[in-house]
Amino acid sequence: MELKDAIFGRRTVRSFKPEAILDEVLNEILEAGTWAPSHGNNQPWEFLLAGPQTRERLLEAYRKAMEAGPLANPELPEERKQNLRKFCVNFGNAPIVLAVSYPPATTELDKYDFPLSAAAAIQNILLMAWEKNVAGLWLSFGANPAAKSIFNLPENSQIAGILVMGYPEIVPTAQTRSRVEAKLHRLP
Amino acid sequence: MELKDAIFGRRTVRSFKPEAILDEVLNEILEAGTWAPSHGNNQPWEFLLAGPQTRERLLEAYRKAMEAGPLANPELPEERKQNLRKFCVNFGNAPIVLAVSYPPATTELDKYDFPLSAAAAIQNILLMAWEKNVAGLWLSFGANPAAKSIFNLPENSQIAGILVMGYPEIVPTAQTRSRVEAKLHRLP
Repeated sequence: MELKDAIFGRRTVRSFKPEAILDEVLNEILEAGTWAPSHGNNQPWEFLLAGPQTRERLLEAYRKAMEAGPLANPELPEERKQNLRKFCVNFGNAPIVLAVSYPPATTELDKYDFPLSAAAAIQNILLMAWEKNVAGLWLSFGANPAAKSIFNLPENSQIAGILVMGYPEIVPTAQTRSRVEAKLHRLP
Repeated sequence: MELKDAIFGRRTVRSFKPEAILDEVLNEILEAGTWAPSHGNNQPWEFLLAGPQTRERLLEAYRKAMEAGPLANPELPEERKQNLRKFCVNFGNAPIVLAVSYPPATTELDKYDFPLSAAAAIQNILLMAWEKNVAGLWLSFGANPAAKSIFNLPENSQIAGILVMGYPEIVPTAQTRSRVEAKLHRLP
């Protein structure tokens, strides 16, 4: 696949076919993650693949958090609530639920760099997944302490993202983006 | 360019040809950044392009920080020190020095998400640059308070990365990466 088609064509998907992702395919997708840049090539990312027990516990914690958060928010449109409720049944039937974590930082620079490098790895993973017709959803639920505990992480480790991945059932249309002109500021 | 060639072929470069990058090319590179995913499509990234004054001030602050840090470290190999001193003369002659920043976060979720989204945007930028034969170096110097002040950022805004970009003079060989097997942990 052309780089442009991956970058501009990639979509966030919330509804997946139950079809499994072969280990070999997952491996190639994750390998792309390992080629992200990192400070001094320290490669701080780790990939934590949820098995059935981990997934069940995560799903329960996620459901509770969504019920207490967005689903209890009177301002969230009913359509989005319905989509979220559907996704909460079983992560949209995605065969893969995987956390990208990074270890405890012992220096201020690592504290700054580790999440950024892990996020760059995630972006590589999402792009390479797209080449293989696999779509991903980057959940912010990794910020939740319950998620960290379920993925069995030591206290100061963090999750940069929980990736829900599979072959898409429904691919949504692109969300609009601000033009570069609105984001680019020329300094003296 | 094939996605794979960008992901696996991209290198961090520290020595550039003085040749300018056309506005049109820079625009296409930055557009790739705007297609990164972000929470609720909030697109927190901003691109701050350094003009001559900003660049000069940044270079001076960077030089001072390198002299007080890595260049004063007796454990850093002399070869790396020499390369760093050379880079400190004028950012390796790169025509572009650009910060990717994100705004102050008002919620815990934004605090978690903004740097990650900005880092994903940076990765898209580095990949698209590579397609255009432009290489980038992702400097962690954005963590330094002096850098924030030079880029004229409000107090709680942050820099996810300072990108030094240009047409490479020397492309180094790839740094080795840990295999996926060493990074993948299967949970129950």
